[in-house]
Amino acid sequence: MRSRRRDTDSSRALRSFESQRRDSSLRVRIDRAGARQGGADRGPPSASVRSLDALFSPRSVAVLGVSRNPAKLGYKLLENVKAYGYGGRIYPVNPSGERILDLPSVTSVAALPEPVDLALVSLPASAVADAIVDLAARGAKAAVILSSGFGEVDANGREAQARLLKTARASGLRLVGPNCMGVYSAPARLNGTYFWDLPKRAGGISVVSQSGAYGGLIFRHLGGRGLGVARFVSIGNQADVDLTDILEFLAADADTTLIACFVEALRDGRRFLDVAARATASKPVVMLKGGRSDAGRRAAGSHTGSLAGAYAVYRAAFRRAGVVTADETEEFFDAIEALAATPRRPSAPAIAVITVSGGPSVVAADCAERAGLAVPALEDAVRSALRASLPPFAAVGNPVDLTPQVEPSRIGDAIKLVFDQASIAGAVAIDVGLDIPEFADALVAEAVRTSKPVVAFATDAPAVSERLRSGGIPVLAGPERAVRAWRALWLAGRGAATRSAQTVRPLAPDVTALLAGTRGALPYDVARRALEACGVKFVREAIVQRPADAVAAAETMGYPVVVKADAPGLVHKTEVGGVRLDLRDAAQVRAACDDLRNRAGAERFIVQQQLAPGLEFLIGARRDEVFGPVVVVGAGGVLTEALGDVGIAVAPVTPADIQELMAEGVRARLANGPRGLPRVDVNALAETAIGVSDLILSEPRIREIDLNPVIASTSGMIAVDAVVVLD
Amino acid sequence: MRSRRRDTDSSRALRSFESQRRDSSLRVRIDRAGARQGGADRGPPSASVRSLDALFSPRSVAVLGVSRNPAKLGYKLLENVKAYGYGGRIYPVNPSGERILDLPSVTSVAALPEPVDLALVSLPASAVADAIVDLAARGAKAAVILSSGFGEVDANGREAQARLLKTARASGLRLVGPNCMGVYSAPARLNGTYFWDLPKRAGGISVVSQSGAYGGLIFRHLGGRGLGVARFVSIGNQADVDLTDILEFLAADADTTLIACFVEALRDGRRFLDVAARATASKPVVMLKGGRSDAGRRAAGSHTGSLAGAYAVYRAAFRRAGVVTADETEEFFDAIEALAATPRRPSAPAIAVITVSGGPSVVAADCAERAGLAVPALEDAVRSALRASLPPFAAVGNPVDLTPQVEPSRIGDAIKLVFDQASIAGAVAIDVGLDIPEFADALVAEAVRTSKPVVAFATDAPAVSERLRSGGIPVLAGPERAVRAWRALWLAGRGAATRSAQTVRPLAPDVTALLAGTRGALPYDVARRALEACGVKFVREAIVQRPADAVAAAETMGYPVVVKADAPGLVHKTEVGGVRLDLRDAAQVRAACDDLRNRAGAERFIVQQQLAPGLEFLIGARRDEVFGPVVVVGAGGVLTEALGDVGIAVAPVTPADIQELMAEGVRARLANGPRGLPRVDVNALAETAIGVSDLILSEPRIREIDLNPVIASTSGMIAVDAVVVLD
Repeated sequence: MRSRRRDTDSSRALRSFESQRRDSSLRVRIDRAGARQGGADRGPPSASVRSLDALFSPRSVAVLGVSRNPAKLGYKLLENVKAYGYGGRIYPVNPSGERILDLPSVTSVAALPEPVDLALVSLPASAVADAIVDLAARGAKAAVILSSGFGEVDANGREAQARLLKTARASGLRLVGPNCMGVYSAPARLNGTYFWDLPKRAGGISVVSQSGAYGGLIFRHLGGRGLGVARFVSIGNQADVDLTDILEFLAADADTTLIACFVEALRDGRRFLDVAARATASKPVVMLKGGRSDAGRRAAGSHTGSLAGAYAVYRAAFRRAGVVTADETEEFFDAIEALAATPRRPSAPAIAVITVSGGPSVVAADCAERAGLAVPALEDAVRSALRASLPPFAAVGNPVDLTPQVEPSRIGDAIKLVFDQASIAGAVAIDVGLDIPEFADALVAEAVRTSKPVVAFATDAPAVSERLRSGGIPVLAGPERAVRAWRALWLAGRGAATRSAQTVRPLAPDVTALLAGTRGALPYDVARRALEACGVKFVREAIVQRPADAVAAAETMGYPVVVKADAPGLVHKTEVGGVRLDLRDAAQVRAACDDLRNRAGAERFIVQQQLAPGLEFLIGARRDEVFGPVVVVGAGGVLTEALGDVGIAVAPVTPADIQELMAEGVRARLANGPRGLPRVDVNALAETAIGVSDLILSEPRIREIDLNPVIASTSGMIAVDAVVVLD
Repeated sequence: MRSRRRDTDSSRALRSFESQRRDSSLRVRIDRAGARQGGADRGPPSASVRSLDALFSPRSVAVLGVSRNPAKLGYKLLENVKAYGYGGRIYPVNPSGERILDLPSVTSVAALPEPVDLALVSLPASAVADAIVDLAARGAKAAVILSSGFGEVDANGREAQARLLKTARASGLRLVGPNCMGVYSAPARLNGTYFWDLPKRAGGISVVSQSGAYGGLIFRHLGGRGLGVARFVSIGNQADVDLTDILEFLAADADTTLIACFVEALRDGRRFLDVAARATASKPVVMLKGGRSDAGRRAAGSHTGSLAGAYAVYRAAFRRAGVVTADETEEFFDAIEALAATPRRPSAPAIAVITVSGGPSVVAADCAERAGLAVPALEDAVRSALRASLPPFAAVGNPVDLTPQVEPSRIGDAIKLVFDQASIAGAVAIDVGLDIPEFADALVAEAVRTSKPVVAFATDAPAVSERLRSGGIPVLAGPERAVRAWRALWLAGRGAATRSAQTVRPLAPDVTALLAGTRGALPYDVARRALEACGVKFVREAIVQRPADAVAAAETMGYPVVVKADAPGLVHKTEVGGVRLDLRDAAQVRAACDDLRNRAGAERFIVQQQLAPGLEFLIGARRDEVFGPVVVVGAGGVLTEALGDVGIAVAPVTPADIQELMAEGVRARLANGPRGLPRVDVNALAETAIGVSDLILSEPRIREIDLNPVIASTSGMIAVDAVVVLD
């Protein structure tokens, strides 16, 4: 059972951070599912992509589960296929052989006149297995199983789902679903979903949703904003085709210019990272992750039958792959709209807020700083020049409030002054009710001239809104929403982390020998040696068997010293009273050893030089069940869990990754050095993190590594304890 | 200069928390304004309220600054007054005496045929002063100065504004503005604003906005949602009438059922607290605060000429007064809509998420936990009962997903089961595209039966939306938005903090004597005595002049001891090397004393018993320039600023206040006790905080108090240092 295993500090800190008090029964179920769903038996990517042509561009479609009863979902499905003008051959399958919606039905799958490209399966769960057997036998290429009642219900459902997969794999039939809402493909004029009133506007946005209902919401919202959808698929339980498969198809799809995903859980995280990074190199990818809270996971687990994992790790992975992460529904749609409206991407996260309407610009500036965007003050020369041409009560600091009384002919020059400041990478423009075309025209002109992107909030200013939109400036429905949409442009522009390939140190031969045959928590000296071989610096110390040797070691290294208990499996020394600080003479060392033996079960003693007080950090790594090795950096020491301050990056990490992580949270303020303590050498911290990253990458059996604390001392980052846990 | 004063830890932590690197020139300007704007010369509240009748229910209105040129704002203003059907007497004032908009104009204020109730002033800034003199002389009751160019511009503007106030005060004329968008009053059918297309729907929502543009945004948004406005006023620079005056009027106004405010800066915070608490006792009050970031403050300072202060203090004040704080624009409108739609208020912050559409319910649950609402798991009996009546793939944990396949006749009983669970205080309902009337009817019925409020997100389900709305259930435009609107119901339902009046300890006579004539940072022993008299417990210690006495004291209390330097004005002892820990014998104490005298300028020595390691807290108070004494509780010790973890409550505080603060942030996790350290006695912590609260309340000259660290030891909360700063 997982709950009995010893946790390292990094995993505890992560849990504290995420408040993941997971339901253990869910966890057990998911672990089983994870084992079953391993990606090892999957075909090569290119074949995978080719096989999805049958899904999105089928030459023929069979619809299973139709009837003449318009109240039935199967009827609706067939009606949708017909109504959207699908040009291929359509075969309703119904044992009666009657005409349905003016089409003759085929009495069975076996009786289909050809091996169809795509079957849409809307049968009761109990009838699905036979249908898939028949479709496989008849040579169908792809089947979308819209029926519910499989992996999302219980163990029986998961077994039934596994049998479907087995049948399909044996014949090369690709499966979408079960438990989904179907597939839509504008280039094929195919609506193979249960949604009957989808907007038909053409466009380049493709949508993958793990939730059918959320997918419907996306589809309708995009339509409501005048944005056209190219492809849509609701992937449900992902028995076979998963989100990454679709992403790979869409990345190569000429009809797709932007990809939007609602994801609850990914499976093969490393493959996802590769595929997503390739996708974001050519088009924006925006994701919203559901199932982040306990309750959200409870629901996600229940309705798609898969684990919704730690959000912080997903965010780190999305960041690595250049995916734009949206935290909320409207932020998601706004990001899509902004990214679809303009190809411009900012060079830095720094905006000007430019307005003719004071108050909402204040709110926008507040939001920008919350969202991690700078709102740099304008330079004195710019302010003076603005003062000279604007009304005296105009604001010229940034936000720049031209005021309603601005002389329209002066707007162009004023906005040009702002855009010309080098530290301004773009603008959020705000207009409440003042329909001054010059305002819009100036923004459009400056965006074109400087390639600095603009996102606007405009209301009750129809000419301004229209001119902005036709000039490629997205217009959103609130000041905060405009700010966050601008941030999406910034996130998309950063792209995937393009790192020089990391040379991951191989294990030193002696370390390979030390690790051979070990499992569980390594003895401290082995853990230390393995980490030292990866460049991690440790405190001066000696590991001894007898109190007398401890005294001798202390005399050699000089007082004060720390003595710690060491014993197999002893991970959290502080909690069992296994650490004695500030020992100043031989008698104190001897007494401490006796006590550690009696009370903490010490078998050996670690005698360490006592470092001068310094800030304590946690540097660790763990093997995430979705994304594999991740590195964790945060505030350490006894307050690790209380602070719950951790930054996460997917391994291998670079110095730049660690510097980015160290610029956030409590650790950023710590790194700036509180009073009276040495300043933190972030480069040295990054070297330590890279060492940890190397070690977990070079030995696949390592589950977790934990350096806590690593002390920022005057002589660099010094580890004083280490835990390495192997499977 | 303020920047040279010594800061206490609480003020530093607050600044760290708020990232308030304020512009010093702004600060100086504001301090002057603050001095000028003191509330002492204001009339009694009831007179103040009565005088505002002339603003909202005038029998006659003069419009100054009109012309026959429709492009001028003055023309628009007069047109608006006429267009909305104002029934009183209207007097355009124009030196030409010509007819404007079919009304004869009066050539001067002096020539007005009566002392008007209300004058709307839309003149150039330079002409305003004479107009106010004339209006005062003619006996006008209230004037709204829409003109810009006063306190928001520069020192000259502030002086001009002060002169307006002086003129008005001398005659009893009330001023609104300058630099505002005017006044609207539905009961009087008066549109005295520059906004020409305001929705005319009648309703009970009254709006006060410091920003004219944001006010316009509110007005239009409410109209767009079908919500009617009773009164609206844009208060601009608040030269005379301020937000609290309007709030007081609206609290007593029978036409107003809900009050919405956009505020950038308040002045007399204590009066605001009283007035707002009285208002929230009878109707909901919702506020959005602008000017929270550096850039936002820069803009707010510039465009309304007043300081936008620390957001955390505003939040604490709003909480105390029972005001619903919204953090963003749409949250603000959503809160207004929800509070206007239903009088139901939850008894606890705990919801069920009930849906027929899976994915969006996951997102709603995620948002609920982020927003501080619980989503309690349903009890086993409830789950079993739901399982029996719902499709097998339904989710019954909470979120409850009935699924599209649910039998409509079973929806009522299922939803009843959820509402009957005692830990569920209401529901967020979600429906994407499934127009099942039974779903809406069941929600309405259960809300009525149990009085547990429901807020919904429904889209593409017109019958459901209509039935929900007509049943008093607000329907909002996104799952997260529905969740936050439900939280607004919870916040409104908590109301103002109704505390038994705190008996603030008067200063002990000896403390009064000690404080007489002091200023700046108190000597440590005086600070300690003052705090001990308020019940704060300190570490055992002695304050001595000579090293030999320090040794004697240490021998009496037992080793190890701490020795600290004491000297007038020495506040941050750690930073100057003024603290020596862990001294274990006479020689070490003597050496430490010598060193402290030489290096830290010690004049006396504080010898303290060294406490066993324990968690360190900061407990402090400061006199906020808006709200007066506030108490600050947070993580303490050397990491105070790095953690920036502070909770704030307006003094006087109760144990319940402190317990609420201690349930949030890093301090909450600290209070739960990290490994190896004593658990924190929150009651003892609250007693200490109340002591601090009492001291700052009982001596108005105290500017700041700082206990840092207060150590959570096995014998309670023990202060080991104290700073008290007097003006």
